[in-house]
Amino acid sequence: MKKNRGQELYKKAKKIIPGGSHLFSKRPEVFLPGLWPSYFSKTKDCYVWDLDGQKYIDMSHMGVGTNSLGYSNIIIDKAVKLTLNNGNMSTLNCPEEVALAEKLIEMNEWADMVRLARTGGEANSIAIRIARAASGRDKIAVCGYHGWHDWYLSANISKDENLNDHLLPGLSSIGVPKVLIDTVIPFSYNDIDEIKQIVRNNSDLAAIKMEVVRSSPPKKGYLQEIRNICDKNNIILIFDECTSGFRETFGGVHKKYNVYPDLCMYGKALGNGYAITAVVGKKEIMESAQSTFISSTFWTERIGPTAALATLNEMQKTNSWEFISNQGKNLKNNWMKMSKNLGLNMDIIGLDALATFVIKSKNWLKYKTFITQSMLKNNFLAANVVYLSTKHSDKIIEDYCEKIFPIFKKIADFEAGDDIVENYLDSEICHDSFKRLN
Amino acid sequence: MKKNRGQELYKKAKKIIPGGSHLFSKRPEVFLPGLWPSYFSKTKDCYVWDLDGQKYIDMSHMGVGTNSLGYSNIIIDKAVKLTLNNGNMSTLNCPEEVALAEKLIEMNEWADMVRLARTGGEANSIAIRIARAASGRDKIAVCGYHGWHDWYLSANISKDENLNDHLLPGLSSIGVPKVLIDTVIPFSYNDIDEIKQIVRNNSDLAAIKMEVVRSSPPKKGYLQEIRNICDKNNIILIFDECTSGFRETFGGVHKKYNVYPDLCMYGKALGNGYAITAVVGKKEIMESAQSTFISSTFWTERIGPTAALATLNEMQKTNSWEFISNQGKNLKNNWMKMSKNLGLNMDIIGLDALATFVIKSKNWLKYKTFITQSMLKNNFLAANVVYLSTKHSDKIIEDYCEKIFPIFKKIADFEAGDDIVENYLDSEICHDSFKRLN
Repeated sequence: MKKNRGQELYKKAKKIIPGGSHLFSKRPEVFLPGLWPSYFSKTKDCYVWDLDGQKYIDMSHMGVGTNSLGYSNIIIDKAVKLTLNNGNMSTLNCPEEVALAEKLIEMNEWADMVRLARTGGEANSIAIRIARAASGRDKIAVCGYHGWHDWYLSANISKDENLNDHLLPGLSSIGVPKVLIDTVIPFSYNDIDEIKQIVRNNSDLAAIKMEVVRSSPPKKGYLQEIRNICDKNNIILIFDECTSGFRETFGGVHKKYNVYPDLCMYGKALGNGYAITAVVGKKEIMESAQSTFISSTFWTERIGPTAALATLNEMQKTNSWEFISNQGKNLKNNWMKMSKNLGLNMDIIGLDALATFVIKSKNWLKYKTFITQSMLKNNFLAANVVYLSTKHSDKIIEDYCEKIFPIFKKIADFEAGDDIVENYLDSEICHDSFKRLN
Repeated sequence: MKKNRGQELYKKAKKIIPGGSHLFSKRPEVFLPGLWPSYFSKTKDCYVWDLDGQKYIDMSHMGVGTNSLGYSNIIIDKAVKLTLNNGNMSTLNCPEEVALAEKLIEMNEWADMVRLARTGGEANSIAIRIARAASGRDKIAVCGYHGWHDWYLSANISKDENLNDHLLPGLSSIGVPKVLIDTVIPFSYNDIDEIKQIVRNNSDLAAIKMEVVRSSPPKKGYLQEIRNICDKNNIILIFDECTSGFRETFGGVHKKYNVYPDLCMYGKALGNGYAITAVVGKKEIMESAQSTFISSTFWTERIGPTAALATLNEMQKTNSWEFISNQGKNLKNNWMKMSKNLGLNMDIIGLDALATFVIKSKNWLKYKTFITQSMLKNNFLAANVVYLSTKHSDKIIEDYCEKIFPIFKKIADFEAGDDIVENYLDSEICHDSFKRLN
């Protein structure tokens, strides 16, 4: 059997790191249990090398959305190296954080002030603290995924199912103080009546927090109606653009819909693989940060803002969001053609730059496992979600389509009952929900 | 008047970043309002250059405790540069995080598992989530400073004064859900009767969380008694070693007292200026992390664990904690001699490697401002707290003592009523408490 140093290391990791990985979406079980390469030694453009030196084309998460300018981008890395040469940290502050704040305000004309952090969960918690401080109210209505913190998971205290459509099915809220029950109320995307009712029933809402676009685009007028509800009821509107930011515009996808929040979070692609996240917002709200205590040593390190400045500069120079959206459209078209050609019942969803397909079948998870396994043999990291980067050339997408077509064809055979997928699976079925790993 | 590009930039920063800086302890007002250099361009060893190219010797916070091996340490930076060359991020995990987990377990023989984060506040929140999940209880007894998160600040909901001795006097808990009232109970360091009473009155304590050493060392038997109380009452003992770690031992200062926690946090010095923090703990408790959701994209970046591995290796090779403690002792002795010589009423406190003096006078804050102002003119960054690093040579400490002696002498004159400090202050008095900045 082929050597798999990554799986060897992952076996050790599971014994000493609860969950094996620090990010749910990087657990090998989410891709290909027992067979996923799991760890990397090197990256470049959209290539990843595993611990055995095997080179793969990444047609999957691209660092879970962090690297829209490709891995090891020479321009960003050059800026970071210069910061290393001059020093990452000191008793004094780094000027890059002020330059980044200026840049983020320039890009978000509705905003006046910025706080930086290093993870998306932190940025989300900062925004919630500021919104609660500014409004003097505690309740939040929430739609979408916003991290691991207490304020968010508290939505599941009353029922383990509340965040099913937003995070992971059946997620336990164990470890979150039970008194937080009913402080956070989830609502469904594109259902204006539901959020209206929540607002009617809760006169003490501090904020409505949401992802601007989830798997489907907003219904006509939906975002504007949310904005109107917030204005009318003095509720702070928070857009979480950690995932959607820089995919369709230079900034938030909300720009495309011409609806503007009071606070907005960016992360993921902001530093092209370096840890940096941000809360931008209106002055009268952001200033409430000063009436409370929001402070952390490592929010003052210099690599984060250095990388973000270089990334934003490069994005702006190349209109990266247009390129990645076009490549995503191209990919989606190819999926559509292939599925039509083969008579596969395929849903194609997500922002173009975060292109996603789902084959509508009771065997979907088995098919997903089969796809990942088969593409891995073709030296692709690929499941059903593709985060596009500026390094995903036409050639790479063509190559990917050529390799995935016979796999889709085989699935069409399975669906037609001409063969069974179980005969082809070398591993357990991939996980799609939060499962305890032993 | 001398140019001060740092102050110019800080004026801009205060308009666009609430609070001006992302860390309370890096606000220029904490040192020298209106005159502190505020921003750095370059660092090396214990030298910092400001935006005007002026070079200073850092006899203050050394990055607020992050750089115990000195700034821009060539060995750590070399490891980080290698990681940059190979790529910081990918869809796969980085093997360095497993190696770091192993190293942290090796160093903490009582521990079995590790979770990594990137800020101290996060590490503290992870430990609290895990302790609550493992115990099925929500209440925490707390001593010391543990970050900006809701769980901690909730201690101030019942009274704004509860965290006075732990964080900042009179800190408002605005923005923290009011239902969290009485979930966190602060206790005073070295007062065993108080914590015993808290435990008697709260049968539902999940954890006792504390800094192992604060300004004074633990009374004989104090830590062991806390350990016994936890064992007897099935309470999880959490030591926050973010600040104290690697100052007196290779790991936590608790090693010195031979008392071991169930969970322990490290941060600050762990990556010598690069963002990395960790929770280490016993298997039966840490495994509860899997029954809840603790996950973040940027916890999987590669610089953090790379820097920590190189830092730990270098610390171990050089016994850095011995050197910095010796230099701190040396410094404290010098302060003692000078104050005796001058008849100054001086308290000398803190771990040796985090040496601190306080002049007992109603004019203390004015004196502190005078010291900082006068030392700055001597090209030292220096107030009353010195975080020692391996680059603080005998020569540098001698030089510092030579420069600070006439300043202490002047203060002795002020105290004797021969002159008044106000005549010498070029700036407002430095802040020592949380003040709204306008």
